[in-house]
Amino acid sequence: MEELAPGHRILLGPGPSIADPRVLRAMALPLLGQFDPEFTAIMTDVMKLSRLVFETDNVQTFPVSGTGRAGLEAAIASLVEPGDRVVVAECGRFGLLCGDIAERHGATVTRVRSEWGTISDPDSIRAALGAAKTKMLIAVHGETSTGVLQPLEPLADLAQSYGALLMVDAVVTLGGCRVGVDRRLVDVAVGGSQKCLSCPSGMAPLTFNDRAAAVLGKRRSRVQSNYLDLVQLRDYWSPKRFNHHTAPTTMVYGLREALRIALEEGPARFARHRLHGDALRAGLAAMGLELFGTEPPERRLPFITPVVVPEGVDELRVRARLVEDFGIEIGAAFGPLQGKIWRIGTMGWAAQRAHVLLCLVALEQVLRGEGHRAAPGAGVEAARHHYAAAGHAGGDVGDSLGAGGIGHV
Amino acid sequence: MEELAPGHRILLGPGPSIADPRVLRAMALPLLGQFDPEFTAIMTDVMKLSRLVFETDNVQTFPVSGTGRAGLEAAIASLVEPGDRVVVAECGRFGLLCGDIAERHGATVTRVRSEWGTISDPDSIRAALGAAKTKMLIAVHGETSTGVLQPLEPLADLAQSYGALLMVDAVVTLGGCRVGVDRRLVDVAVGGSQKCLSCPSGMAPLTFNDRAAAVLGKRRSRVQSNYLDLVQLRDYWSPKRFNHHTAPTTMVYGLREALRIALEEGPARFARHRLHGDALRAGLAAMGLELFGTEPPERRLPFITPVVVPEGVDELRVRARLVEDFGIEIGAAFGPLQGKIWRIGTMGWAAQRAHVLLCLVALEQVLRGEGHRAAPGAGVEAARHHYAAAGHAGGDVGDSLGAGGIGHV
Repeated sequence: MEELAPGHRILLGPGPSIADPRVLRAMALPLLGQFDPEFTAIMTDVMKLSRLVFETDNVQTFPVSGTGRAGLEAAIASLVEPGDRVVVAECGRFGLLCGDIAERHGATVTRVRSEWGTISDPDSIRAALGAAKTKMLIAVHGETSTGVLQPLEPLADLAQSYGALLMVDAVVTLGGCRVGVDRRLVDVAVGGSQKCLSCPSGMAPLTFNDRAAAVLGKRRSRVQSNYLDLVQLRDYWSPKRFNHHTAPTTMVYGLREALRIALEEGPARFARHRLHGDALRAGLAAMGLELFGTEPPERRLPFITPVVVPEGVDELRVRARLVEDFGIEIGAAFGPLQGKIWRIGTMGWAAQRAHVLLCLVALEQVLRGEGHRAAPGAGVEAARHHYAAAGHAGGDVGDSLGAGGIGHV
Repeated sequence: MEELAPGHRILLGPGPSIADPRVLRAMALPLLGQFDPEFTAIMTDVMKLSRLVFETDNVQTFPVSGTGRAGLEAAIASLVEPGDRVVVAECGRFGLLCGDIAERHGATVTRVRSEWGTISDPDSIRAALGAAKTKMLIAVHGETSTGVLQPLEPLADLAQSYGALLMVDAVVTLGGCRVGVDRRLVDVAVGGSQKCLSCPSGMAPLTFNDRAAAVLGKRRSRVQSNYLDLVQLRDYWSPKRFNHHTAPTTMVYGLREALRIALEEGPARFARHRLHGDALRAGLAAMGLELFGTEPPERRLPFITPVVVPEGVDELRVRARLVEDFGIEIGAAFGPLQGKIWRIGTMGWAAQRAHVLLCLVALEQVLRGEGHRAAPGAGVEAARHHYAAAGHAGGDVGDSLGAGGIGHV
């Protein structure tokens, strides 16, 4: 069997996003033992950095050793007991998933459903919470399947009034827009590594506050999972160093570097995600493509752009051509949206001008082959115009070019 | 926060072992999308390679996206239903763990306990299986906590006679000694990446046969976990490409390379683990150290050497000095053995002559500081003698030295 040699890819799907090269470099470092003081110091670093990215002071902030889904399951399995009532604000695939996980762990689940492409409606959630005593309200901050961004404040108010915990799936939003755990009174939040943090998939940063810790402390039954038991994981990620699983050293290295990069960039990171997403959308609109969804811009994810597949265009063939000819991956869709929309992600390291313009120029070429007409270059021109209007004339590499880079060679 | 810069370590504990540099190089490669044909081809490679290492033709052979513990839980959670009876052959920490997982998933667990340092006794297991209808017998192939190697054939015979599945924890043995899944009639086996495969922790190769698949197919209840549900994971790791979690791309790359290395080496790999473990033990004996346990050599793990801490020696201080002065990690112990033994692992890439000799020379130095007397150089000399007697005169790098390498410069 041959040596691995993955082809060139620009990953502009809903995740994994392109890994930041600095993250991959960190992941190539030799291993430390799991209770080596150097490694436990790295664990402490990861906790500190995670708190800053989640915007929380929660002591209990650490990653779960699995993908985002493992983080969601750890939170639900540990905070919900068989027979507890859970209300899920469901408006896409990840709301569906949270409901499924809660049911598997014995909860009685009430789903407050909204149409895919809209956010969950606080009035319906109020009605559901009012109907019976509820242990936890679960909401999806960024619903990757549809591209909506759920405002959390109204849900936090409701959770507080009805004495329920608010758990938030922030897998796609962490590092791409503000999660604001403490300010927004989120009790439990779960992030992912392979979206806006540009780290490979495999770790799920998680945080929970004292309100959630109290619920954990009052459990009458054992958590139905050992691997995803937050009682044990909390003690592992603490000075107790409770011996649990063997930490995935390389993933911990990668996550540390990804968080460090996010914090070096600071709030400019959110503006960058907004800028490149908006430029992409300007370009797509100029190509005559329709964005999916009816929510206003502030309720849409800046970095996941759902695009309606034009009539007569073969959805699958377009994606295949983009990969085969240009090494560009964009995303398909799930459930009711399958075959109807594409999802273009501009997350983390992928959120840069060259990727946006390459995506537009390649998409124009491929769509032309499908009979979709757009003025040649219209997409790229509109995006360039957006960058110029945003005061971003030179693009990401503009400064270095202006200072004697490639442009002057 | 500073850039990561882990110190030099020779990891000779019970895991993680030193990652093979080729594995780390593979893990630094750029990501592919999870349904990219190039990536699904890599998934297929991993399945093929895993079958060879497990020595099985089982179609259902793929890794779980978590550490060895996640693999164990996936197998137990998916094959056992609430109320099912499970018999666990428990003679150390990992038997304990399997019992805990089975209980959390609702099984009625009967533990057949043997003293730590001995293997599980087939007669006691027969008695337990005869007492009531049993769904699954769980055994630990290599009990890392004590260093014993459980013969599987008698247990497989018993499981077959009593109509139970035989599940085997092969986390530490996979890639270091024969697991022989098909030949030994093991129904389910779970491996680990961070032991004899010298890949970082974070993936658990798993295999199950048609007998186990039939049990999975006849479940009356849903698996209590979504993340660890083998029904879904099997469909994800199949041409169906059922959409489940986002595969941890980098870990999949690493595991592929680790398996590829193991198969390139072939059966010589098992002989190598035996050789270096034996050389280490010869050296330790010559230093007047006592090996822990009463089982004969064929029932001991070749690559985990439990050593009794001599009287008057500070167990913790020895390990700390080894790390601080020499960058060498050896392992502590759990439960009844805590403070009483060390565990020295010579697994995967760590199983080489230089590591064995460095460990012996450093340990001699540190033990001298603790008042433990051994003839200076006795450990290294005995190990060198073992290598010579085994026809391994030049050590791992002997050939290249003989052919004009460092020795001739």
